[in-house]
Amino acid sequence: MCVLVVGSVATDDIRTPAGEAKGVLGGSASYFSLSAGHLASVRIVAVVGDDFPNVHLELLERRGIGIDGIERRPGESFFWSGSYSDDLKTATTHETRLGVFEQFDPVLTERDRMSPFLFLANIDPILQLRVLDQMSDARLVVLDTMNLWIDIRRDALDEVLRRVDVAVLNDEELTMLTGDHHLVRAARRLLDRGLTAIVVKKGQHGAFLAARDDYFSLPAYPTDVVVDPTGAGDSFAGGFVGYLSRCRRTDAPALRAAVAFGTAMASFSVEAFSVNRLCEIDEEKILQRVATLNDISSFSF
Amino acid sequence: MCVLVVGSVATDDIRTPAGEAKGVLGGSASYFSLSAGHLASVRIVAVVGDDFPNVHLELLERRGIGIDGIERRPGESFFWSGSYSDDLKTATTHETRLGVFEQFDPVLTERDRMSPFLFLANIDPILQLRVLDQMSDARLVVLDTMNLWIDIRRDALDEVLRRVDVAVLNDEELTMLTGDHHLVRAARRLLDRGLTAIVVKKGQHGAFLAARDDYFSLPAYPTDVVVDPTGAGDSFAGGFVGYLSRCRRTDAPALRAAVAFGTAMASFSVEAFSVNRLCEIDEEKILQRVATLNDISSFSF
Repeated sequence: MCVLVVGSVATDDIRTPAGEAKGVLGGSASYFSLSAGHLASVRIVAVVGDDFPNVHLELLERRGIGIDGIERRPGESFFWSGSYSDDLKTATTHETRLGVFEQFDPVLTERDRMSPFLFLANIDPILQLRVLDQMSDARLVVLDTMNLWIDIRRDALDEVLRRVDVAVLNDEELTMLTGDHHLVRAARRLLDRGLTAIVVKKGQHGAFLAARDDYFSLPAYPTDVVVDPTGAGDSFAGGFVGYLSRCRRTDAPALRAAVAFGTAMASFSVEAFSVNRLCEIDEEKILQRVATLNDISSFSF
Repeated sequence: MCVLVVGSVATDDIRTPAGEAKGVLGGSASYFSLSAGHLASVRIVAVVGDDFPNVHLELLERRGIGIDGIERRPGESFFWSGSYSDDLKTATTHETRLGVFEQFDPVLTERDRMSPFLFLANIDPILQLRVLDQMSDARLVVLDTMNLWIDIRRDALDEVLRRVDVAVLNDEELTMLTGDHHLVRAARRLLDRGLTAIVVKKGQHGAFLAARDDYFSLPAYPTDVVVDPTGAGDSFAGGFVGYLSRCRRTDAPALRAAVAFGTAMASFSVEAFSVNRLCEIDEEKILQRVATLNDISSFSF
């Protein structure tokens, strides 16, 4: 089944303890689609400037991602440069140039509106609401956001939270949204606002899923190869939504397995700069990693 | 099979966001034995002063713990008072009076020396070495320690690490010992020093087990009832060692299940002040909680 993602397509300059990459493909929709694209048919709605490297769009196209919805506008493309601390826990932004992204006004085609699965990547909640207004009856809408929007767009974000099915957040965002440091309790509080499920990403501590009648927790994939953490969250969301789309189910057991596919995709994503590792892997490697996650979290007594 | 624990038996004054408790039973050996005692026969080697309340010793005895090895000496008993921050993440020590514990020189009886399972609770590594010198060929020796000893008794602690089978540490201690913030990598580094396995406790993020040929990760029990975190680590160790002693196995599947029993016991321990909750529960409640841990960490795909 088809997955629609509305988010950013950008170029990044990234410095990590493992090295440096310049002018590489970045943006939430890029990571998401190249991750989900292993499991489902994905279309992007985004905007880039007339300076955007063709090579990046060609890569997306070659990987089977629908890029008709990436509008080209006169002006500069979204650009981010940042670096990571030695323990990879903190990202420092050196520069963000929104460029044409500042005028981004997502317009969905008839086909987009009918998408059964929608991922609202991390963009202004006001734009997320405009996307929701255009959608027909999607089977599952999954949301991402960031600390900035929790700070300055709280009302719009609260409205978005009332209208989506699943929020995929990191621990810091969950605590900001609820004022609660106890993550399981915080997730339950957020569920009360009407969501079906919340997935909380905790980096090296793994992820958990809190739903009305379910709770599931999974460790991170135990790799120590972390070259570039950029896009790990979007790659996670790609594995999560991609799996649900592929198995055409959104029940509790499917959501659990989707967390495992998200965890696997995030673990691949961080093993190389930009989207490079996401483009190297195949379904067999993904299934192997999900099987490993299954093994390392099992016990009998 | 019999479990021997060498550690502290003390009284505590504790303040948490949930309230206050004064003069209550504390000490690593108390928490450990009342936890392990649900699964195995446990004997304590410790020292208390002549001021130590009989009611605490009677409680241990009533719960079937062997207390012959608790020496009574003229002087004051070990006393700790502390409080916890609102998010329960930080403990502030207000006062520690070592009392007779300062002259603690553990002497093992013939029966103690033959114990197949030994838990070296958090005491000076120099004393831990003296205990190891007296032991016959124990089947499994499990170690706990703390940041203080990592700081001021590094050589003795390194020697202890070479002579025990399993270390049960928290994430902060593991990072201090290895200088590595990446916990899985840090655990593997520590394994290289000769241990069979390392169990890393991460509070609300659960625990993981790293062994030569195995890796296992388990979430925390998803409770939000945290009244008093004191003794959670020792209660964990009690469930861990108690289970291994009960099933008479120390292979990888048994170590995995033991982590689950440790996790369950820690989750009970924090639900009331001091050892109160550990004294209320029974085997059925423990097995229920282990079954829940099994369920919340399972998925199929």
